[in-house]
Amino acid sequence: MPSEFDIIERFFKKSVPNEIVGIGDDAAIILASQTIEFAISTDTLVSGKHFFPDTDPYQLGFKSLAVNLSDMAAMGAKPRWSLLALTLPKNLTGNDNPWLSNFSKGFFDLANSYQVALIGGDTTSGPLNINVQIIGEIKRGKALRRNNAQADDDIWISGQLGNAALALRHERQHIILPLEEKTRCLTALLMPSARVELGQRLVDLAHSAIDISDGLAADLSHILKASEKAACINIDDVPCSPFVKENLSQPLIRQCLLAGGDDYELCFTAPEENRNAIASLGIELNVSLTRIGKILTGNQLIIEDSQGRSISLDNKGYDHFIS
Amino acid sequence: MPSEFDIIERFFKKSVPNEIVGIGDDAAIILASQTIEFAISTDTLVSGKHFFPDTDPYQLGFKSLAVNLSDMAAMGAKPRWSLLALTLPKNLTGNDNPWLSNFSKGFFDLANSYQVALIGGDTTSGPLNINVQIIGEIKRGKALRRNNAQADDDIWISGQLGNAALALRHERQHIILPLEEKTRCLTALLMPSARVELGQRLVDLAHSAIDISDGLAADLSHILKASEKAACINIDDVPCSPFVKENLSQPLIRQCLLAGGDDYELCFTAPEENRNAIASLGIELNVSLTRIGKILTGNQLIIEDSQGRSISLDNKGYDHFIS
Repeated sequence: MPSEFDIIERFFKKSVPNEIVGIGDDAAIILASQTIEFAISTDTLVSGKHFFPDTDPYQLGFKSLAVNLSDMAAMGAKPRWSLLALTLPKNLTGNDNPWLSNFSKGFFDLANSYQVALIGGDTTSGPLNINVQIIGEIKRGKALRRNNAQADDDIWISGQLGNAALALRHERQHIILPLEEKTRCLTALLMPSARVELGQRLVDLAHSAIDISDGLAADLSHILKASEKAACINIDDVPCSPFVKENLSQPLIRQCLLAGGDDYELCFTAPEENRNAIASLGIELNVSLTRIGKILTGNQLIIEDSQGRSISLDNKGYDHFIS
Repeated sequence: MPSEFDIIERFFKKSVPNEIVGIGDDAAIILASQTIEFAISTDTLVSGKHFFPDTDPYQLGFKSLAVNLSDMAAMGAKPRWSLLALTLPKNLTGNDNPWLSNFSKGFFDLANSYQVALIGGDTTSGPLNINVQIIGEIKRGKALRRNNAQADDDIWISGQLGNAALALRHERQHIILPLEEKTRCLTALLMPSARVELGQRLVDLAHSAIDISDGLAADLSHILKASEKAACINIDDVPCSPFVKENLSQPLIRQCLLAGGDDYELCFTAPEENRNAIASLGIELNVSLTRIGKILTGNQLIIEDSQGRSISLDNKGYDHFIS
């Protein structure tokens, strides 16, 4: 069975006119005026695939926009407008059912906090399917792309990885997290923070960026493939919560950090001379920013531990057609 | 149970910044530059709701774009870019299954004929759900809106109505169409012609427009509500195929013409002084354009026959949450 990426590559990737970034980045770019580009992206959440059918609709409304804001963050774009295509089973649309009201509240609470307007959409009945499109603005030529990582760039990660993956394992009763950790991880899973301000501020500091939705290994590999570069990262430098480091088994930690998915943190590459500026930006925005490795010439992703031992990873990331 | 329109009105219609057409027209409008606006729209097709599960994937790919092109036509915009969010059941994505290849061919055959680029999307697994977003260009301030019908405007219809509704009744074996009619009606249902050129040429001739997707009565009512106007139309002037007029019962004809849905023809209103120019445009584009009534002051939709008898219609149109 082909993967999501195979399907796009085989059936839907066609050449597009000049000056446009087409399929294959976090968002497409179209020229709006002589000085402004629009970044456009769409993400679908499917019941039973991306969320449990009984997920709180407020959180679902919030997350359906958050995952799209994250694509804008990865491009360095300022999100401006959104459209919402909702396919709803009839049991959710009864007059007495607060589902839609709560979903809408979650969506708008996040939209309003970024002054993103909901300008259109479509509503139909069928199995629950939530599709959001987002449009952001960016100065012409400034978008953070996947294909511009340079040899010797530092590789940076915002925030912590693996929390959403741990929450999922807790929900599936594969592990049991103590209350505080559980709350923190569930928030990361259900109401992720898109790094919208960070992305916009990185456009003059970073060479390339991606948001980590499928897992660090898979998403960093997208940068490497598009940029025709290699990378070496130190797994022990990848940021995670102290609880995780102290209490969970090393294979589980590595699985969650490298292939967890649903992190919605940014992975970006930047020249060494911008280290201080990036560190200062992290302090200003109150976002931890961590260097985890280097971009190299070649085409491999090398993952090592602090002792220089090579780590192999069977399941590189989250793919909707394999998982 | 609330209708699709109630849901949008209650939960998702919020005020948006100046100079933007938000929820409630065929497309939203955002300002791209000092002289250009972008029209943006999205439409979802759900298996078992908008199409039979065994629909030919080539036709489905074609139609999923066509219904979005029709929204651009209704705004008078030139379609430029599209995004495709596909939710696919696993049985359609097997390596030996030609479904995706045929779907993609249908989509691109239509896209290429209008030079519409597919610039992004999302692919995930789940119950079949096809969502297309489209972005078109239009000169600033020129978009055809629903809210600008003027008293004494002529009401015009492009092409013929009711063909898709008849095809559906044939497929459900409620009626039996002879082969030639069946072919014609099925083409209207499965591979509708969006009136893209017509829409763009109407921006200097028409006051308001909508595409007929939910049925003439429902869609004309959207213009009347948005424009705060009334209308009177003559049901006997509404264009349909000669076969229909000669062979089908009057109640069935009226039901199909007024509430059929899936026509994707344009309904537009224009001042009387543009009658000749509009007639010439129809000849130039080889599209029949028919006057069916007048816009009036007030707030009612009056439907009469050629004898001046009032027609009442129980089921005004197609609504995904009622039908």
